[in-house]
Amino acid sequence: MPEFVLYHGWTSSASRKVRLCMAEKGLEYEGRHIELLSFEHHSDWFKKLNPSGKVPALLIDGVPFVESNIINEYLDEMYPEPSLMPTDPRLRYDVRMFTLYIDGTCLPAVQKHNWMGRMRPVAMKWTDEELEARLAAVPTEERRKVWYRMARDPYTDEELQTALDILIDMCDRIEDGVRSGGWIVGDNYSLADIAAVPYVRRVEELAPDALSAAERPGVADWWARIKARPAYAKAHIGGYDEQSDPDYRPPAV
Amino acid sequence: MPEFVLYHGWTSSASRKVRLCMAEKGLEYEGRHIELLSFEHHSDWFKKLNPSGKVPALLIDGVPFVESNIINEYLDEMYPEPSLMPTDPRLRYDVRMFTLYIDGTCLPAVQKHNWMGRMRPVAMKWTDEELEARLAAVPTEERRKVWYRMARDPYTDEELQTALDILIDMCDRIEDGVRSGGWIVGDNYSLADIAAVPYVRRVEELAPDALSAAERPGVADWWARIKARPAYAKAHIGGYDEQSDPDYRPPAV
Repeated sequence: MPEFVLYHGWTSSASRKVRLCMAEKGLEYEGRHIELLSFEHHSDWFKKLNPSGKVPALLIDGVPFVESNIINEYLDEMYPEPSLMPTDPRLRYDVRMFTLYIDGTCLPAVQKHNWMGRMRPVAMKWTDEELEARLAAVPTEERRKVWYRMARDPYTDEELQTALDILIDMCDRIEDGVRSGGWIVGDNYSLADIAAVPYVRRVEELAPDALSAAERPGVADWWARIKARPAYAKAHIGGYDEQSDPDYRPPAV
Repeated sequence: MPEFVLYHGWTSSASRKVRLCMAEKGLEYEGRHIELLSFEHHSDWFKKLNPSGKVPALLIDGVPFVESNIINEYLDEMYPEPSLMPTDPRLRYDVRMFTLYIDGTCLPAVQKHNWMGRMRPVAMKWTDEELEARLAAVPTEERRKVWYRMARDPYTDEELQTALDILIDMCDRIEDGVRSGGWIVGDNYSLADIAAVPYVRRVEELAPDALSAAERPGVADWWARIKARPAYAKAHIGGYDEQSDPDYRPPAV
């Protein structure tokens, strides 16, 4: 077995996806937490591992792998037990479309809530000079825009509500998939379920009623089944505020 | 063999990728051209096929498949000859990372040039009322922003130059992969090469020297090998201006 070193953030949705996949596969790794508010992910040494300056980055025998969905599909191909992808091409298409939807639609939505809670209080205090220096270190235009907004043009209540609506709509889509005791794609737990978990975890904090058996019986049942899996505890997908604390340390599992 | 119906745009990079993949596989389809300047892709009937309102959409026995990279990987799994994905998981990771790079970085760059040439002259003439109505039909925020810019805030020369620089940098990355007669990932032609073709075709028009043997011998050789493949002619990846003409009809192959 190669040596795995995972650079990750406790609260980062993409990091949580990879931690969960590795826990399901029983892959042990040395975790190195990247403190996002110390801007370690914008440092030159980290950008050598991931030029886009984002967590997670997984070193396998020293070789970096990035992008959570692509890491997880790679891990599933290298370590096929237990399998986390369907064998039917149509269902494989569905898993990939769902993970693309999560990254393209749900990630920008959850980020608005995450960043306002955590990045905004720091970034709003920057002088123009500090802001300029910080932005210069951010490798992608998309993330530069987010940091600029945190510093000078915070998300409005309307934007935050629209973002929450997107996450509630995600719960409706999951309900369609998991009704009658199934998983998001087909009859088996897959990378689609893994991709959803960090986002549903945030809905549990931001709008818990959306997961209630009264509102979405399929989701409530699916979420209970997710949480009962040993990998869920092992992946440490904890409270957002709790895990934002620089002194957070995961409990023994 | 199921019935394939491809809704596509002649000049659309994503459509070109799928046409090329189907040509390599020898899959025959009924092509239905979507005239982007008639906004057919924002019509309700098309958004039923692809809620994101983008071409291409591939109907397979009436069931819609969307997102060019995911369509192509699906086609490769359903119709494995000739294979367009490596078998080694590490190389499969590399193909997926390359196609993600193309979509995430090169697509926004090529769009700036494509849209300024074709959409801007139309959109700039819209009244505020027309603009509002057009934007209301665009299903994604990202594309609404592009249409707004075409109507009221066109890309600057500096932005267009930055976009071209990104495409030139793409040629450098391809050079690294194809030097010594190989393909972009590993020793075999793959979905990575297919993903690059529509973008290199535009570089050939926008900055032809970048593909010269003097500047990039590997790319020049790779591009000649690409164009010599029967699938290249069959996919009709023609001149941008020529194929922008509503009266364009592909030549017999």
